[in-house]
Amino acid sequence: LATDLHHSCQWGPGIRWGQNPTDTGMQRLTLSEEDKHVRDWFVQTMSGLGCNITIDQLGNIFAVRPGRRANVPATFIGSHLDTQPTGGRYDGILGVLAGVEAVKTMVDLGLETEGGIGVVNWTNEEGARFPISMMSSGVWAGKISLEHAYNLKEVPTVASLPTAASAPETVKTALDKIGYCGPTPCSHEATLMAAHFELHIEQGPHLVSAGQRIGVVTAVQAYRWYKLQVTGRDCHTGTTAFQHRADAMYASARMMVKAREVASAHGCLASVGIVDARPGSVNTVPGLVSFSLDIRGPETADVEVVVRQLQQDFDAIAADEGKEIGKPCRVEWQLDFDSPAVNFHEDCISCVQQSAEAVCAQDVGVTDSKSLVRTIMSGAGHDSVFTSKVVPTSMIFVPCKDGVSHHPEEFTSADDCATGASVLLQAVVRYDRQ
Amino acid sequence: LATDLHHSCQWGPGIRWGQNPTDTGMQRLTLSEEDKHVRDWFVQTMSGLGCNITIDQLGNIFAVRPGRRANVPATFIGSHLDTQPTGGRYDGILGVLAGVEAVKTMVDLGLETEGGIGVVNWTNEEGARFPISMMSSGVWAGKISLEHAYNLKEVPTVASLPTAASAPETVKTALDKIGYCGPTPCSHEATLMAAHFELHIEQGPHLVSAGQRIGVVTAVQAYRWYKLQVTGRDCHTGTTAFQHRADAMYASARMMVKAREVASAHGCLASVGIVDARPGSVNTVPGLVSFSLDIRGPETADVEVVVRQLQQDFDAIAADEGKEIGKPCRVEWQLDFDSPAVNFHEDCISCVQQSAEAVCAQDVGVTDSKSLVRTIMSGAGHDSVFTSKVVPTSMIFVPCKDGVSHHPEEFTSADDCATGASVLLQAVVRYDRQ
Ligand SMILES: NC(=O)NCCC(=O)O
Ligand SMILES: NC(=O)NCCC(=O)O
Repeated sequence: LATDLHHSCQWGPGIRWGQNPTDTGMQRLTLSEEDKHVRDWFVQTMSGLGCNITIDQLGNIFAVRPGRRANVPATFIGSHLDTQPTGGRYDGILGVLAGVEAVKTMVDLGLETEGGIGVVNWTNEEGARFPISMMSSGVWAGKISLEHAYNLKEVPTVASLPTAASAPETVKTALDKIGYCGPTPCSHEATLMAAHFELHIEQGPHLVSAGQRIGVVTAVQAYRWYKLQVTGRDCHTGTTAFQHRADAMYASARMMVKAREVASAHGCLASVGIVDARPGSVNTVPGLVSFSLDIRGPETADVEVVVRQLQQDFDAIAADEGKEIGKPCRVEWQLDFDSPAVNFHEDCISCVQQSAEAVCAQDVGVTDSKSLVRTIMSGAGHDSVFTSKVVPTSMIFVPCKDGVSHHPEEFTSADDCATGASVLLQAVVRYDRQ
Repeated sequence: LATDLHHSCQWGPGIRWGQNPTDTGMQRLTLSEEDKHVRDWFVQTMSGLGCNITIDQLGNIFAVRPGRRANVPATFIGSHLDTQPTGGRYDGILGVLAGVEAVKTMVDLGLETEGGIGVVNWTNEEGARFPISMMSSGVWAGKISLEHAYNLKEVPTVASLPTAASAPETVKTALDKIGYCGPTPCSHEATLMAAHFELHIEQGPHLVSAGQRIGVVTAVQAYRWYKLQVTGRDCHTGTTAFQHRADAMYASARMMVKAREVASAHGCLASVGIVDARPGSVNTVPGLVSFSLDIRGPETADVEVVVRQLQQDFDAIAADEGKEIGKPCRVEWQLDFDSPAVNFHEDCISCVQQSAEAVCAQDVGVTDSKSLVRTIMSGAGHDSVFTSKVVPTSMIFVPCKDGVSHHPEEFTSADDCATGASVLLQAVVRYDRQ
């Protein structure tokens, strides 16, 4: 597993942070050249293991090892091979590679299953290049339209990378460019699944700080992505007194500070990842600023409360900036993505729980094993969020160093990866037998 | 004058804000294709008026109408034809076009002068594309090195415009591209001047709100441009509690708010025009943010006080963000440009004062004319700042609507332009006779 995982990371290595060959992050934005290479490798590897390959209209790649019964949908292992611009080697990648390893192990052992066992690589889980996360599992589940996904434009920071095309690309043009726009409709009705299991690094600090090995994921918190646009009036930085300004950047900075304050008060998170100030000249006060706002909370209602409060607060901040000249700033909210809180399926959760206890028992003995396993809520979104809308789903978390993710130094030990992969394989086999 | 001015604005029209043909702003970034076209027009027009043309290594264009005495340096009228990305039709443009008009008038009247009369178009006054304002008058005055100017890179917002080259250009590559890298050394020792006069719109509200027609500019306030870089740690927006973050964008937003507070307390200005948050993904907390900071004050010492205070405050804000994880943010200051406060030359000021009173007297009668003229300090920098370091210099301001500049709707009436141009012509002739 470790060998394959790092082999696949040759395509799109990111920032180097240490001396060892694998001490780099990853920069493998979805539908990039590097993404094409790792996809080609995935297709070849899975074909070599006797799997049937389906590529759908959004480039989702489904590889199925047939089971005894031909007319039963396969039980799937899924995750994603794309990364953040400054991502690591485990987020998503571990989930797909553990799927490859599961099928290899089945082939090695000559293990037969009732239904088929599939591995799926979902396109644009990260939402880093095209700003909708879990995009293609969302379309597959019927929750996002194909057209909406096709027309999404890459974000400006990615469009300005040295390797980028001159004009911002859309999902459709990027898919065509790397030849991964397949013929199969992107739909759970066209590509059937019995269930979806996903192994992922926790991306947070709970397992690692408690010294636990497996998180049995029961739920995923709610989140929304907004694009905020603040409109003021361009003016000269040297000649315009503060009270004569409608400074869209100053108003935006106040909003960013306020967002943390309000989210914090409600036990939620709020984060600004993308900022674009126009016209972007040292001596012109920006008249137009847009920024992304990612708001999360354990319950869907928590997020709604924070949004409502911030809408009021941002309006007040905007109204305050430029009022002396009778041209106050305005702020507009555009909802780009909405992912309500999700609970996973009991049957899947129990397969994971039993498998986790069994695998840990092999390591440390039956009595202690339970303390190494805990149930956990996911702070991040995953493709399992969307598969859970249409098929039984659950997830397995393994610890990662310092709880750090979306960072080049993201790290999970080979042992923890192996433990997670064993739990995954057992859970899938358990589910298949049920 | 009005006809020529708007004719020359056909190259690089910006945002339209009204129905009339001239109701647009300008987007003529220095050394762009549009800048080349207006330069070509300027060279042709001045040659047609019998001027000798010199183009120096930075593309400064000097056009001189010879005087009676061959071995006396010319008295110059100068300003710039480049604009902000969302600039107007008067900032800089009026100053050069009033120079063209002055020479035309001399030719029409058959007016002979003692020394030559020159008109100069300075390259990259705005500092909008390459982030040093008054760049080429600075090199000409020996205050900035040619090499430093040549190697300046365009700012990221300009580099990302649809018309931009794929890699950010430097001043030198941009000069070569439009064919305006001339053979003459860029130096006040190679291209001599007796004095430098500049007509400009005020870009601020004082003249227009007092109903005055001419500002006799005696001084220019101090300013500094910094590039701030805030380094934190990238992390996941959904899984990282606020106390586990070193969020470079949150810290930067707090700094931006603080900058206004401190500048305000010291009677100064502080403005953020360019912001770049990396990696620039909705669901990654930025680990690296850079932003421009433009600080201005009436005296050089005022700016220094604000800078010292902000250095302390920004250090404290940075130290506060990420302290719980033992990886606080860091902030670095890079000084890009420093323009101490300047006082103009008494001889030039008095030529302007006398001319202003004379011109206004023609309009409203001798007694009232003085009330239409006032001395004024410039909030903005101008090429005259640098010429003043080596030759007698002063400036003339005319009012502009609502005091608005660096905005497409920047506007000065044809009457006010004409009044300013008359004062300019008289001041130059007065100076020549002295
Ligand atoms: N696991 C992960 O990083 N997913 C990206 C979607 C999100 O922002 O939570
Ligand atoms: N006049 C003018 O806008 N000059 C640009 C330099 C400055 O930022 O003051």
